[in-house]
Amino acid sequence: MHSENYPSRLLAEAVEQFSKLPGIGERSALRMALFLLRQKKEEALAFGTALNNLVEHVVFCKICHNLSDTEICSICSSKKRNKTILCIVENVRDVISIENTHQFNGLYHILGGIISPMEGIGPNDLEIESLIRRVHSEKINEVIFALSATMEGDTTNYYIYKKIKSYVDKISVIARGVSFGDELEYTDEITLGRSIVQRTLFENSSSQ
Amino acid sequence: MHSENYPSRLLAEAVEQFSKLPGIGERSALRMALFLLRQKKEEALAFGTALNNLVEHVVFCKICHNLSDTEICSICSSKKRNKTILCIVENVRDVISIENTHQFNGLYHILGGIISPMEGIGPNDLEIESLIRRVHSEKINEVIFALSATMEGDTTNYYIYKKIKSYVDKISVIARGVSFGDELEYTDEITLGRSIVQRTLFENSSSQ
Repeated sequence: MHSENYPSRLLAEAVEQFSKLPGIGERSALRMALFLLRQKKEEALAFGTALNNLVEHVVFCKICHNLSDTEICSICSSKKRNKTILCIVENVRDVISIENTHQFNGLYHILGGIISPMEGIGPNDLEIESLIRRVHSEKINEVIFALSATMEGDTTNYYIYKKIKSYVDKISVIARGVSFGDELEYTDEITLGRSIVQRTLFENSSSQ
Repeated sequence: MHSENYPSRLLAEAVEQFSKLPGIGERSALRMALFLLRQKKEEALAFGTALNNLVEHVVFCKICHNLSDTEICSICSSKKRNKTILCIVENVRDVISIENTHQFNGLYHILGGIISPMEGIGPNDLEIESLIRRVHSEKINEVIFALSATMEGDTTNYYIYKKIKSYVDKISVIARGVSFGDELEYTDEITLGRSIVQRTLFENSSSQ
């Protein structure tokens, strides 16, 4: 379809916006825009408003870099979490995945990615300096690596391991319940939960 | 995933809104919300704004019931269109599909659906009365049926045919280039364009 044939400029603009979303073609985008128009007006307006609220007001937690509505996220500020265990993850989706297993009660540190020379992502592009500062200043008994089971994940684990090993007693890596090459966020909750419970000392992990 | 585990209420609300879209599960919805957060702020804000503009300001054309930014749509108000030929379609997507063929220069009438006893849609739920009024008051030489090639489409064609046949000289139906059971909007533009050019008199069409 060609946007010049849309009967309404407003429709064309909404379709264009929906088309920008990952995995959404112009035809699906049109369906979405027309779907919105079939909703009750106040419900349909709540859609755009929720998106703009998200974009305007969400922040990154100053401690762990998780998405948050407040300066310090609900996990970092919770009194029920064990603040001596730190789980290192790539992104927000991984935090959500691990939280859904209900198997982890410590804190997180979100790197914002993993070291990937192919994509030009080096240690300085990630929240590694701030992780090292946390390990220096907070009383951390254990650091758990929960990065994707890929070559890049292993590289990142090892890079961070060398930087923090003298400051942390125990450095572990989540059990490899998933085949090498799989991405963390597509792992089912049972496998992922088990892999946290059965985490092994980093020095003993097979890839070292 | 369970929304209670989102690190941010604003994120949870945006995910909930995206999940309402047709064909979008919670995981895709989360990807979309996080995608928005990775965009430049002004671009991301343009998204919600475009949706709210659509919902607030788009109207239905008073003549043909197409979506429009103005009281009378750009097709109905165009001086270049042949106002004596009326093409009957189910919905806005069908107008866009036919416009993209560049084979039709008349006006449209959008029913808003087709008669479907299974879904409880009767003639009074559709823009049939307003079609009859148009046929009475405007100088229409030909009415073209371009509904889906389904049982419901045939039923709707026939219902309208009986109501308007004494007021219109020529009532045609788009050529059946597509197999029975196919939906109009999934037809490729060449087939759909050809089926408009090769339309046959309604009385001669095979289903009567």
